Amino acid sequence: MKDLDLKKFDVRTDLALEAKELAEKPGTGPIPGIQSNTEEEDGITVTMLHVQNEQGSQAIGRMVGHYVTIEVPGLRDGDTKLQDRVTTKFAQHFEAFLQRLQIPKTARVLIVGLGNWNVTPDALGPLVVENIMVTRHFFELMPDQVAPGYRPVSAVAPGVLGITGIESSEIVQGIVDRSKPDLIIAIDALASKALERVNTTIQIADTGIHPGSGIGNKRKGLTKEILGVPVIAIGVPTVVYASTIVNNTFELMRNHLEAQKGDTNQIFGLLNQMEDNERLQLVREVLSPIGHDLLVTPKEVDEFIEDIANIIASGLNASLHEAVDSSNVAAYTH
Amino acid sequence: MKDLDLKKFDVRTDLALEAKELAEKPGTGPIPGIQSNTEEEDGITVTMLHVQNEQGSQAIGRMVGHYVTIEVPGLRDGDTKLQDRVTTKFAQHFEAFLQRLQIPKTARVLIVGLGNWNVTPDALGPLVVENIMVTRHFFELMPDQVAPGYRPVSAVAPGVLGITGIESSEIVQGIVDRSKPDLIIAIDALASKALERVNTTIQIADTGIHPGSGIGNKRKGLTKEILGVPVIAIGVPTVVYASTIVNNTFELMRNHLEAQKGDTNQIFGLLNQMEDNERLQLVREVLSPIGHDLLVTPKEVDEFIEDIANIIASGLNASLHEAVDSSNVAAYTH
Amino acid sequence: MKDLDLKKFDVRTDLALEAKELAEKPGTGPIPGIQSNTEEEDGITVTMLHVQNEQGSQAIGRMVGHYVTIEVPGLRDGDTKLQDRVTTKFAQHFEAFLQRLQIPKTARVLIVGLGNWNVTPDALGPLVVENIMVTRHFFELMPDQVAPGYRPVSAVAPGVLGITGIESSEIVQGIVDRSKPDLIIAIDALASKALERVNTTIQIADTGIHPGSGIGNKRKGLTKEILGVPVIAIGVPTVVYASTIVNNTFELMRNHLEAQKGDTNQIFGLLNQMEDNERLQLVREVLSPIGHDLLVTPKEVDEFIEDIANIIASGLNASLHEAVDSSNVAAYTH
Amino acid sequence: MKDLDLKKFDVRTDLALEAKELAEKPGTGPIPGIQSNTEEEDGITVTMLHVQNEQGSQAIGRMVGHYVTIEVPGLRDGDTKLQDRVTTKFAQHFEAFLQRLQIPKTARVLIVGLGNWNVTPDALGPLVVENIMVTRHFFELMPDQVAPGYRPVSAVAPGVLGITGIESSEIVQGIVDRSKPDLIIAIDALASKALERVNTTIQIADTGIHPGSGIGNKRKGLTKEILGVPVIAIGVPTVVYASTIVNNTFELMRNHLEAQKGDTNQIFGLLNQMEDNERLQLVREVLSPIGHDLLVTPKEVDEFIEDIANIIASGLNASLHEAVDSSNVAAYTH
Repeated sequence: MKDLDLKKFDVRTDLALEAKELAEKPGTGPIPGIQSNTEEEDGITVTMLHVQNEQGSQAIGRMVGHYVTIEVPGLRDGDTKLQDRVTTKFAQHFEAFLQRLQIPKTARVLIVGLGNWNVTPDALGPLVVENIMVTRHFFELMPDQVAPGYRPVSAVAPGVLGITGIESSEIVQGIVDRSKPDLIIAIDALASKALERVNTTIQIADTGIHPGSGIGNKRKGLTKEILGVPVIAIGVPTVVYASTIVNNTFELMRNHLEAQKGDTNQIFGLLNQMEDNERLQLVREVLSPIGHDLLVTPKEVDEFIEDIANIIASGLNASLHEAVDSSNVAAYTH
Repeated sequence: MKDLDLKKFDVRTDLALEAKELAEKPGTGPIPGIQSNTEEEDGITVTMLHVQNEQGSQAIGRMVGHYVTIEVPGLRDGDTKLQDRVTTKFAQHFEAFLQRLQIPKTARVLIVGLGNWNVTPDALGPLVVENIMVTRHFFELMPDQVAPGYRPVSAVAPGVLGITGIESSEIVQGIVDRSKPDLIIAIDALASKALERVNTTIQIADTGIHPGSGIGNKRKGLTKEILGVPVIAIGVPTVVYASTIVNNTFELMRNHLEAQKGDTNQIFGLLNQMEDNERLQLVREVLSPIGHDLLVTPKEVDEFIEDIANIIASGLNASLHEAVDSSNVAAYTH
Repeated sequence: MKDLDLKKFDVRTDLALEAKELAEKPGTGPIPGIQSNTEEEDGITVTMLHVQNEQGSQAIGRMVGHYVTIEVPGLRDGDTKLQDRVTTKFAQHFEAFLQRLQIPKTARVLIVGLGNWNVTPDALGPLVVENIMVTRHFFELMPDQVAPGYRPVSAVAPGVLGITGIESSEIVQGIVDRSKPDLIIAIDALASKALERVNTTIQIADTGIHPGSGIGNKRKGLTKEILGVPVIAIGVPTVVYASTIVNNTFELMRNHLEAQKGDTNQIFGLLNQMEDNERLQLVREVLSPIGHDLLVTPKEVDEFIEDIANIIASGLNASLHEAVDSSNVAAYTH
Repeated sequence: MKDLDLKKFDVRTDLALEAKELAEKPGTGPIPGIQSNTEEEDGITVTMLHVQNEQGSQAIGRMVGHYVTIEVPGLRDGDTKLQDRVTTKFAQHFEAFLQRLQIPKTARVLIVGLGNWNVTPDALGPLVVENIMVTRHFFELMPDQVAPGYRPVSAVAPGVLGITGIESSEIVQGIVDRSKPDLIIAIDALASKALERVNTTIQIADTGIHPGSGIGNKRKGLTKEILGVPVIAIGVPTVVYASTIVNNTFELMRNHLEAQKGDTNQIFGLLNQMEDNERLQLVREVLSPIGHDLLVTPKEVDEFIEDIANIIASGLNASLHEAVDSSNVAAYTH
């Protein structure tokens, strides 16, 4: 496959859904090679996106593969019943990935929690790992005594380059060589272009993790090509660039005023006619030199991250072990 | 004194410096009743602002009193030598407050760390309290054995309403009634209108803490009127509203383009002619209903907050105890 | 009431149950003024102890009042079903205290979490406070909108003398003066004389907290006499002195060998004939000068403390609010 | 080399110094094959122990190699000047190991922090790793720009079996295969037989880490034989068995009374004539069935562990990088 021209897609989002939104032009039809379907139910919006071929891949700057995005704006209210429903929904969609990839029920799974546990918005991966039900050692040490309905699951948080001095992908490769899993699930914090998606959205993808994605330093990626086994990536946007907040808001304002008054050219002047990317460039030009173009996260990040890490861990525990009841998965984490 | 019309000043900043910036119109002279003086030295900018009378107070929406703002953009780089210089500078300016208020060297001091220790951007106050050198109990239990050069210092973190069920001001009043300090120093996390000031700025004020300021729930305030003893407030902006990021950026873009090209009306259309507050209203109208107008904080908030809490604690330890060497204050905290 | 001669009872236990055990001599009958009853059910042993009068009080060195001790050795295994049963049992016995003290269902309650959150075995009180459902502010701010089945509950963690410079009892008094509760519940970490009771035992007492009890610095106590409202004390032993481990083990060895072989004089020599306190003195004489007589806690203290704090918080939430279902209280904390 | 009969040496200590103490019989000369030398200076006692051959190894149950033990009872007082002196002393002795093993100044070093970060007394390794100055990534990414006086250092905390499901030795092997260090430094929490050594003692050994040592689950060990490069082990005792406290105290009591009164047979009866191991067996027999024989740690473990982790990290930073000044190493950690 040809390398993607990442510059072109440098809109600072790790969500395939947002990449597609950015690639769509008003008035034109669907993007060839991209199939997409959205369902909404009781406050949970699920978008299934299929990048079918290279044409689609080049159009939105994402690898060929399946992407599922679960958006739940209400997650910010700390409603435990909603959290339980999201857990169940996440588990269902995750299981569909296992089936599509034909992962057997006894396949050995390694869960990799990427990110830095000392930086709250980057700590999603390590937090999920803390709540995973690991079982591999029981299979190694006393295989005859493991109850039916479980599979060998292991979990590691390899840290980040600035703390270990070693690429996290190198560490993962070393662990894979030794522990020989059949499937890797990599969890990572992401960047979004929209503040309202931060800490309210989960993306599942069968493409692995590619260089440059995620908010940390993951230059080498975690993919089937590199590691030899399939890699399912689970990501949650936890940060957004100040410049994309500004640019995104401009778009929202234009839509808002267009609906109300009609002539947005008069209101917004030349800004109105700029391409999205062009305008973003302008915003960055202004913000970057004075240190304004920071990655930011909502004030309540500590609680949001913990809630969503629990959802993912509970959902994985239920999906990976048949013996864990999918209807009451939350009880298995704390 | 008349009540301030807070609506008018609802630009969502707790910094007097920013309130003044917002009140100044280009082309008009200095604001009557406001005296201001700014010094810059080696990356540290200090602004001394004096709200001299009610006229000044009404103009910028701040209480009559002295405000010192220390801005250090370089603090984000984690440079320990710069941190030491800021500590010394902060201690000098804090000592000037003690002198102006004629606080004797033996006066008993209570340090109040406001905020919620479970919410990182709101944990500044509790973090400072953790690193304060408390001595009051030595004076109570063995007054003859306390070495010269110390004064009685106590420190509490009263929590926030949502966690205790009691207004923090009520808790502080109860503690003041019992422990009878001569001076209160209240530390709190603030909101700024400019992202680059977040976690890089310290404000000292002799006005106490007034209802509605700070990012938590402090409806009743901590003032000399309420508590019976002077209250020095120390604040650090740790959050900013998404809407003020957008509005502030618009201003920056206009200045940037004006310098380059001249006619910003053409570029910005009607937006260009709006008053700052009017435009902010528009931004909020668009962002609030869809959950975009969150308070946000930089991704690295954990480290930034810890660094600046150490600076304040070290500076206070040096200012309050003569026996603590002002040239090497950092060694007393960890 | 006469002052208790604490020296006489200086066996370094805060549990009334252990004080009684120490006061009992083999071969003599029950202690006058002490009524005691023990029940065991499914791994949970509950002892109800009533110090009926001054005679009983002097005999075991505890204040007149009711003491309930819940012992659950199995708590160390992290069994969540057992934890739920203990929560229910604790709630039942706590409600009996509320009834005996004739606390009305609308009485306002202040929960005080004593201890130091930076020292794990002393952090029980603050940990319970973190998981208490506080409601007082709803009653203050919007009394008409509070659903039936709740009462006003507030909760504070006043810190310890070494961190605040103020006696925790002074802080609590100040808060009581301002917030005017009808009942205080004080939670504290205790010392036991038996390692197996550490982190597996909960004591409830209607006597308040007296000087010298608990593992921190609480010289002034929290009692009805001082605070003007009833005080129920809840304590969990989290530490034990090395010297009492040794002394207690000696006793266990003697009983063990007596059962097996008969003549323990031959085996233990003079040690065998020493009084318990005399032997403890000898052990301390040997250990103290060389720094061996430390307070110790089991290695897994972090997890044990968290589990038992959750049990207490869940039990209190169920006991204090009728609307919280006693059969499923655990869901209200995290 | 023959396998060591570990049962024989099952006195539950990981310190070679204590193993030697246990092997020594009063009245007999030095143990053949063991060379030992002790120096005391200003509250710091350093014992250099050389297990010279298999005879010595079998006698004390430790591998052939060099062991240095630094004992500092005063560390419990939190004296920062003493901490600095211990850091310097530790760095000196650690450098002697580097020289004896002929590790060149440019050799690449991997630091492995064993243990569980959720269990305070087992968190020493991960805490040291947090404060290590890692540099390997600079050498990988921009080798020309690294200042002189540094070497490539990386650091990982592989977690424990119960959390990852993978043996920590497997994880380390995988990382070694990928990152190819020339030397490994493994840090681990240990068990001691003497409470006063807990959190006050540092052991350095050139033998690596062997199965069964340490307080966690490290069945496979980290040795030159397994990993292909030299392994220096650094350990700090952070826990002690209740049974060894009792047994050790008995020994102390006997010595104490012997000095005073002479006939300890009369006082201690048959206990007096038991072999140390025999008596320990008796103590365990009594304590184990009733859940008393726990591993315990001093109440103040949080602070002690943090202090000693800082000493080790600072000492390693100074020893490994010439550019880090050995006289002021503490400034490089926090």
